[in-house]
Amino acid sequence: MYGYLRVDVRAGLSLVGTLTAALSVAYVVPIVVALTHGGEDLWVFVATLVATAAFGLSLRQLDPHPDPGAREAFMVVALTWLFAAVFGALPYVLAGDGAIAQPVNAFFESMSGFTTTGATVMDNISLDHHSHAVLMWRQLTQWLGGMGIIVLAVAILSEMAVGGAQLMRAETPGPGVSKLTPHIARTARALWLAYVFFTVLFIVLLYALQVLGFAENMTLYNAIAHGFTTLPTGGFSPEARSIEAFTPIVQWLFVPFLFIAGVNFVLWWYVLTGDPWSLLRDAEFRLYLGAVTVLSLVATLVLFFSALETPETGMVGGHIERSLRYAVFQITSITNSTGYANMDFDAWSGPAKGILLFAMFVGGSTGSTGGGVKILRWLVILKTLRRELFTTVHPEAVRPVRMNGRVLNEEAVRGIYAFTLLYIVLFFVGVALLAADAARLGLDVSLLDVLSASIATLGNIGPGLGEVTGPMGGYGSFPTTSKFLMILYMWIGRLEIFPVLVLLTKAYWRS
Amino acid sequence: MYGYLRVDVRAGLSLVGTLTAALSVAYVVPIVVALTHGGEDLWVFVATLVATAAFGLSLRQLDPHPDPGAREAFMVVALTWLFAAVFGALPYVLAGDGAIAQPVNAFFESMSGFTTTGATVMDNISLDHHSHAVLMWRQLTQWLGGMGIIVLAVAILSEMAVGGAQLMRAETPGPGVSKLTPHIARTARALWLAYVFFTVLFIVLLYALQVLGFAENMTLYNAIAHGFTTLPTGGFSPEARSIEAFTPIVQWLFVPFLFIAGVNFVLWWYVLTGDPWSLLRDAEFRLYLGAVTVLSLVATLVLFFSALETPETGMVGGHIERSLRYAVFQITSITNSTGYANMDFDAWSGPAKGILLFAMFVGGSTGSTGGGVKILRWLVILKTLRRELFTTVHPEAVRPVRMNGRVLNEEAVRGIYAFTLLYIVLFFVGVALLAADAARLGLDVSLLDVLSASIATLGNIGPGLGEVTGPMGGYGSFPTTSKFLMILYMWIGRLEIFPVLVLLTKAYWRS
Ligand SMILES: [K+]
Ligand SMILES: [K+]
Repeated sequence: MYGYLRVDVRAGLSLVGTLTAALSVAYVVPIVVALTHGGEDLWVFVATLVATAAFGLSLRQLDPHPDPGAREAFMVVALTWLFAAVFGALPYVLAGDGAIAQPVNAFFESMSGFTTTGATVMDNISLDHHSHAVLMWRQLTQWLGGMGIIVLAVAILSEMAVGGAQLMRAETPGPGVSKLTPHIARTARALWLAYVFFTVLFIVLLYALQVLGFAENMTLYNAIAHGFTTLPTGGFSPEARSIEAFTPIVQWLFVPFLFIAGVNFVLWWYVLTGDPWSLLRDAEFRLYLGAVTVLSLVATLVLFFSALETPETGMVGGHIERSLRYAVFQITSITNSTGYANMDFDAWSGPAKGILLFAMFVGGSTGSTGGGVKILRWLVILKTLRRELFTTVHPEAVRPVRMNGRVLNEEAVRGIYAFTLLYIVLFFVGVALLAADAARLGLDVSLLDVLSASIATLGNIGPGLGEVTGPMGGYGSFPTTSKFLMILYMWIGRLEIFPVLVLLTKAYWRS
Repeated sequence: MYGYLRVDVRAGLSLVGTLTAALSVAYVVPIVVALTHGGEDLWVFVATLVATAAFGLSLRQLDPHPDPGAREAFMVVALTWLFAAVFGALPYVLAGDGAIAQPVNAFFESMSGFTTTGATVMDNISLDHHSHAVLMWRQLTQWLGGMGIIVLAVAILSEMAVGGAQLMRAETPGPGVSKLTPHIARTARALWLAYVFFTVLFIVLLYALQVLGFAENMTLYNAIAHGFTTLPTGGFSPEARSIEAFTPIVQWLFVPFLFIAGVNFVLWWYVLTGDPWSLLRDAEFRLYLGAVTVLSLVATLVLFFSALETPETGMVGGHIERSLRYAVFQITSITNSTGYANMDFDAWSGPAKGILLFAMFVGGSTGSTGGGVKILRWLVILKTLRRELFTTVHPEAVRPVRMNGRVLNEEAVRGIYAFTLLYIVLFFVGVALLAADAARLGLDVSLLDVLSASIATLGNIGPGLGEVTGPMGGYGSFPTTSKFLMILYMWIGRLEIFPVLVLLTKAYWRS
């Protein structure tokens, strides 16, 4: 049946089945939560676990001894995230509470979770309207998505040479090998160690603040919930007003962990194994640190000299600690694409939002869980643009560009250029399609909301800069067709675009 | 004195002097206008003519027999536009009427003219507040800028191989030669013939509508004024409400000429010399035609099904001719970066503005007077991104990309990628700087105005999508520092960025 294809579809699907079946183990977490909270929605997760495991194990039967290679990896990556989102949506539908019980909304919320986007269609985020188990599952999807992403970014995409990801190859712990599996397993263990370490540390510190009396509402449930969504740069919160719901000291504690989440986890692996200086030796880390610092300072000054005031925050303008806290928190949270809010930044002035928009396009580091174009790509672009100015004057000159002491591979540079341009083209296409779709139904969404919806889904940021897409708004009012487009954008954005688009080409399946 | 430089500064400055002196001849036009309108502001233009000619001729003395080569061309191009803008600002200062009498505003308005941007800082655009001569000079700066641009784009940048402009080389009439002057002169004659032909035809047709009784206020003055600003995709109008001031039939007559202005003038030269099919053989023309057609259709539907209504236009929603006229006019005017308005499109719904934003990033064709990234670059990007998907699957494959039947030069592709990325980086840097500057002074400009100001100046579009930058607003309320940044952006944007930035590199001056 598949004889004329060059892709081993059976082997690919079989691996997808194995991964899907493995994912079903994760439903144990909401099952435990349900058991410790009066059994509410317990059956929902048991049923979902059974369905997911059954589907995964059946798919696995397609090829009992799969031997997938590089070509199959595209398909495995794309389908694993898709199936995770589809099955991860089941609990919302089965629980039947609120707007996310509608299938398209459930799919949106689940894709937003597994892609660590954090855009929500929920109308009432509250434990009064949803069970503890359902809201914890929503948080957990982001943590699982983040686990997948660091391994994908470091071990898999680098082998595929997608969008310049081959630059990562030299950085990975252990030598690259052509067969994916053994290499992935070794790298994944190292990165997950760092990921779990910071997650647990953060949960312990958050809960310690409560125990010490500094954070009344940072219950163990809330500590775990936010531990699940910080390191993956996710941004979901079981609190309707996000991190604004907590005391200033809690908000400050988020800042270093938000920052950590935007760093290449390979560097954290080096740091945790005894080489802290590897951080500062890395050009991408230095640019990330520099960008967050400068943007935080600028935003602090902008807020301090503004007349910003909301009912929840009181007067921010002229208040040093508040200006600093809101600016540093939001810049850190937006730069690496987490999207938590510690105030309604839709109330910021136009110029202050301009700084946030700039931060949105910076993105996290490669090998981190952050979305967007990624800092390494901008770094390569800035370095090669300087070279381009030189060769404009000296067209005959050959001038290699160096980073971290090594000469940049020109193939990787071309891949990075292509990725970034494709990202921008898709952003504009998204704007046009979302605008046309809203107009078709006579909805007067603001231009900022249309722009935001495109970039916040493609870049896996979550909240945007308009009223509907803002941190205290929600994506529920977009038309169904737009929701499907945004689901697609979250999916392809998270997987660095190429692995999904490649599946649409004839060249992938034949030849 | 210049012995250690590799740039023949004397020869370059001498040529700049010659061009500046030649420009002083243009003041004859406002002088004639002043003479036929009671001599108002006559002395202003006589004084400016003398000052410009004196400066130009003195500069020319630096080298009586200049022999500039390719290296000097960067400097000549950048300085000619700069001096044109500086001397072109003198009449506004000397006339002393309104906001543009302030030097920074005069410089802004003059740069906006010579770069065919069309952004204005004037507070009262009316013959009641300014002389006929001053307003005609303002229009004429755009026509002169457009003359310069088509020659720059076709004959000069293509020799410099800037931003992929070498793709143009094969298209130019006459063989390319290494010394610039004879080649430029021959090409310039051909292109200017087309430019003058369409300008005169448009003026005659506009005035004919008045003579025939279809356009009471399209006086000969107005016909010439708009003839001066349509073909250069300029967008200045002596009417405060731009093209809304005229009857529907006049607005319709603008549409084909707006479209013509966005086409490569080399193609018009072929058409006028007997080869009309050269248009459809050109891939860039087909994409331009297709983009304008599709966007016009979408915008028409969006307006027709909206509730758009303004005091000036009446109800647009549900009205076929109005929806069609406003949509087609604005899409044509915005796509090629002219920026005329036949209604206050700031009143359009968010989704409708989304379509306009998309159009803004399309831009005109190469070799036209249009600004922005330009359609040829997008075409190359789209074609090579398809190739990139292919090579993601087949990393070993070498696959040339073809356009108009020829294989694309990979150097040109890299130049186009670099140009487009630099354009986008500068756009974001502009957003951040304009936002920080506004915040510094506590101005609450909207985010859309900040975004618009960056793209509308860098892309030489003119009006933007906010209240301040919109077609019925004005840039006068931006701080002085922001105005200087926007002057810089209009300048570098018009000259395709590289020729100006190159002057800031050590590699240009030494080695
Ligand atoms: K996020
Ligand atoms: K313009």
